[in-house]
Amino acid sequence: MFASLKDKLLNSKPLMDFLNKHSWLGKTVNKIAINQTVNSARARPHPWSTVHDYVSWVSLTDKKWSARHLPADRRERALPDPLALTALFNRDGQPQRMSKKSTCLFPAFAQYLTDGFIRTRMPSASAGETDQVRLQNTSNHQIDLCTLYGRTQEQTAALRVKSEAKGQKGCLKFQRLKGEEFSPYLYDMEGNFTDPEFTLLDPPLGIGKIQDAEQKARIFAVGGDRVNSAPQVTMINTLFLREHNRLAGEIENNHPRWDDERVFQTARNIVIVLFIKIVVEDYINHISPIEFNMMADPSVVWNAKWNKPNWITTEFSLLYRWHSLIPENIEWMGTHFSPAQAFMNNKPLVDNGLRQGMLDMSKQATAELGSFNTADFLLGVEKQAIEQGRLVNLAPYNDYRAYVSLSKKKNFNEVSSNPKIVEFLKNHYTSVDDIDFYIGLFAEDREKNSPLPELILRFVAIDAFSQALTNPLFSKHVFNESTFSTVGWKAIKNTSTLADILKRHYDDTDDNEFIGMTQKSWHPE
Amino acid sequence: MFASLKDKLLNSKPLMDFLNKHSWLGKTVNKIAINQTVNSARARPHPWSTVHDYVSWVSLTDKKWSARHLPADRRERALPDPLALTALFNRDGQPQRMSKKSTCLFPAFAQYLTDGFIRTRMPSASAGETDQVRLQNTSNHQIDLCTLYGRTQEQTAALRVKSEAKGQKGCLKFQRLKGEEFSPYLYDMEGNFTDPEFTLLDPPLGIGKIQDAEQKARIFAVGGDRVNSAPQVTMINTLFLREHNRLAGEIENNHPRWDDERVFQTARNIVIVLFIKIVVEDYINHISPIEFNMMADPSVVWNAKWNKPNWITTEFSLLYRWHSLIPENIEWMGTHFSPAQAFMNNKPLVDNGLRQGMLDMSKQATAELGSFNTADFLLGVEKQAIEQGRLVNLAPYNDYRAYVSLSKKKNFNEVSSNPKIVEFLKNHYTSVDDIDFYIGLFAEDREKNSPLPELILRFVAIDAFSQALTNPLFSKHVFNESTFSTVGWKAIKNTSTLADILKRHYDDTDDNEFIGMTQKSWHPE
Repeated sequence: MFASLKDKLLNSKPLMDFLNKHSWLGKTVNKIAINQTVNSARARPHPWSTVHDYVSWVSLTDKKWSARHLPADRRERALPDPLALTALFNRDGQPQRMSKKSTCLFPAFAQYLTDGFIRTRMPSASAGETDQVRLQNTSNHQIDLCTLYGRTQEQTAALRVKSEAKGQKGCLKFQRLKGEEFSPYLYDMEGNFTDPEFTLLDPPLGIGKIQDAEQKARIFAVGGDRVNSAPQVTMINTLFLREHNRLAGEIENNHPRWDDERVFQTARNIVIVLFIKIVVEDYINHISPIEFNMMADPSVVWNAKWNKPNWITTEFSLLYRWHSLIPENIEWMGTHFSPAQAFMNNKPLVDNGLRQGMLDMSKQATAELGSFNTADFLLGVEKQAIEQGRLVNLAPYNDYRAYVSLSKKKNFNEVSSNPKIVEFLKNHYTSVDDIDFYIGLFAEDREKNSPLPELILRFVAIDAFSQALTNPLFSKHVFNESTFSTVGWKAIKNTSTLADILKRHYDDTDDNEFIGMTQKSWHPE
Repeated sequence: MFASLKDKLLNSKPLMDFLNKHSWLGKTVNKIAINQTVNSARARPHPWSTVHDYVSWVSLTDKKWSARHLPADRRERALPDPLALTALFNRDGQPQRMSKKSTCLFPAFAQYLTDGFIRTRMPSASAGETDQVRLQNTSNHQIDLCTLYGRTQEQTAALRVKSEAKGQKGCLKFQRLKGEEFSPYLYDMEGNFTDPEFTLLDPPLGIGKIQDAEQKARIFAVGGDRVNSAPQVTMINTLFLREHNRLAGEIENNHPRWDDERVFQTARNIVIVLFIKIVVEDYINHISPIEFNMMADPSVVWNAKWNKPNWITTEFSLLYRWHSLIPENIEWMGTHFSPAQAFMNNKPLVDNGLRQGMLDMSKQATAELGSFNTADFLLGVEKQAIEQGRLVNLAPYNDYRAYVSLSKKKNFNEVSSNPKIVEFLKNHYTSVDDIDFYIGLFAEDREKNSPLPELILRFVAIDAFSQALTNPLFSKHVFNESTFSTVGWKAIKNTSTLADILKRHYDDTDDNEFIGMTQKSWHPE
């Protein structure tokens, strides 16, 4: 994960324990590690986007086109058929390999996070759009919790209570179900919007596939069009909804003269920062193969040469498709759900509540990322991903390894230690330098002590830090108590994990309850 | 101008001559001077914009609101009436003081430059808009020559020839008048658009005031809505139009297989960089009080902590209103024009041609910036500027001095050496700490050897470098020959001044011809 520091030192547990305990030293190592990681690739701005093969004012400024780490590769090569390559993901009847490190909370958070800013534009069949629109995106290019707050100001307004009444200032719309706070439902049993303002929201992706009126009437009105795709994703959104409204209440109590607008904007400032802290200190630390706890320390980026505006890349939209992480079977309070049964089905969350959902997701192992391990339900999207790489003329896998300062693989045997994968690659490609980006990403061995293979891990680390920590709320003259209020400043200091937030919403905390992305039983390999 | 370097050393002509001749040393001094200048104020992102008085996600991300260097100042103070303050600009029948340093080419370029990115949103009376819309802007927040290329991609397309025919690739639309290349006319003699695509352009500001059909039929179809405001501004646009088309021709010759789009985009990359080079090496060096030649060296900003995305501030939209620079009388080939006669009147440019216009503007002194010196025609806009400062609740003048690391003025006598100005300030304000930002800017003495007073000079230097050099075309992995082609790379190396460009368009160069913003006869004071 860390370009030059990934050596024996950083795998020494006693040293890491020492660093994690000594904050000044820890902060310094944190800064060095982050800088070395991000500097292993070129800093933004990316010269190219999907609009032109060359540098243009449009490629440098129009963010509706996705940026590119490497320019379009127009060399003529005979490449295997995407459908044939999909076999790399097919379990072929074998049981899924399960992760020894990750719980089901990990893919739930990963999906919620990435759906917020990796937003490939999806073709609208009714508008006669083709796959060409996948060259574009609908991203705000920020980790801005648009899943919770909406992509546009109009959507944000539609999701807000907008009241100056005591106890309502700054709140997001909600309903109580069995005494617990959830987003309002989007549709009634007749399929009509429950609130005329909800017409401004992006329609949930895949809603056309839901025939059951009851299931459709349990879709939540939220900011993101993929939030409702699975109950474990709505679960994460529900957690942040509750935290927003809790903070709004506290801010209102502390600042009774602030209006609805100021209470809302301040709560939102806080929740975005809490989210980014969790991205680094919970999620990235789960992904990291080393024992050192990375910190979301804003001062790391203030003078960093890579502190440049975010711009989602077309490569990132592929390398984050971790379909094989999704298990064929998830339990909610003892009831089993296949991915197809869980698709756009909020019933298990509503029936069992947020806390139980978080507990259930934290006690189950998720599937292992890699080849021959994707749930059958998701094989179609694997094919689509391969095709998207071809559509945007991605350079081959080995070129991307070189780009992030990893050595190129000299032959097929070096790509994977699994003979079946090597055989597969040899059968489909003439040269190791021809391997498609998407295929190479998932053909690699999983990195020791990490849920991810090497190239994905490197890219995720580079982009996580360079996109999360460059958030404007983390900037030098913004990251201070007056931006977040006293209440918020305290919440920021006290938040590192999803569990930290969840606990604030329940009085009867039980130390035996385990909430986490890393399995309770996990030990380094 | 330069925060810590402004000492005797930098006023030593022999030393400056030495530095200007020794490029490595000069580059180092250039880098230090630029960094010290920009670091005299807070680095972006600005926490506030005109949308909220506090930090919010909107204030940090929605660029249609203007950013703020200092937050809104809502203290209750009894301030003088804007109309009464307008008297500070009124010559009261006295002749204009003329500049000893600047030619009329200086305000022409300043206006063309600033109209491209300081774009306060103007209220549309027909849409029932009030002055409140002046809180917003229509800027792209980049020095992108939108005056030439349009603000939007649709406008850019409307201005392009869009032909794959030999000799036309990549060109902007043009017409020949007396054998010379100009933009096409926007309207015919009946007042109809000459080209249906021109309906996509922003209508020229003030066009409603033009009753004369012939005058209206000489308005050019250009990218900027203020380009036609005076013939000396259209003149600058015409120069860059010709350079774009000249470069397109050269690029096409060198790359016969490139299509119209690539030739256009490459020519545009080049022309934007030429423009920024002129901003620093011609315009800023004219403004600078020291003899050292500042250089547009992109490497200065690659690792600078102030290399953060541009965002036009509401303060900048006021401090750049240099109305008093405009002389009551400008000569074009011996014919005299008052500002009212020159308003939206392209006749002197069309009649005399580009070269003659550039020569005429270079041989006349412009008026001196400061108090009691504005042309009568422009007194109304001075009042509007004072009112705009009040509308956006600007902090007072002295607070802005402190903000850019200049000492606060302790009393009225320190503001100006002119007793009449001191008297004026005393008559209108209770305390020196109450002086309006706009009034303080123009009440100050002009800085020795510069056309600008101290606070304006400091702000212009900070923002010129931090906005011009952070252009994405100057970034580390973009600023190279492949972005600009061999032709373009050479043009960039060979361009420092407007004169450098003009000379490429005439075979019969005459060394006695003088084109420049600094008067030929000028000697340091």
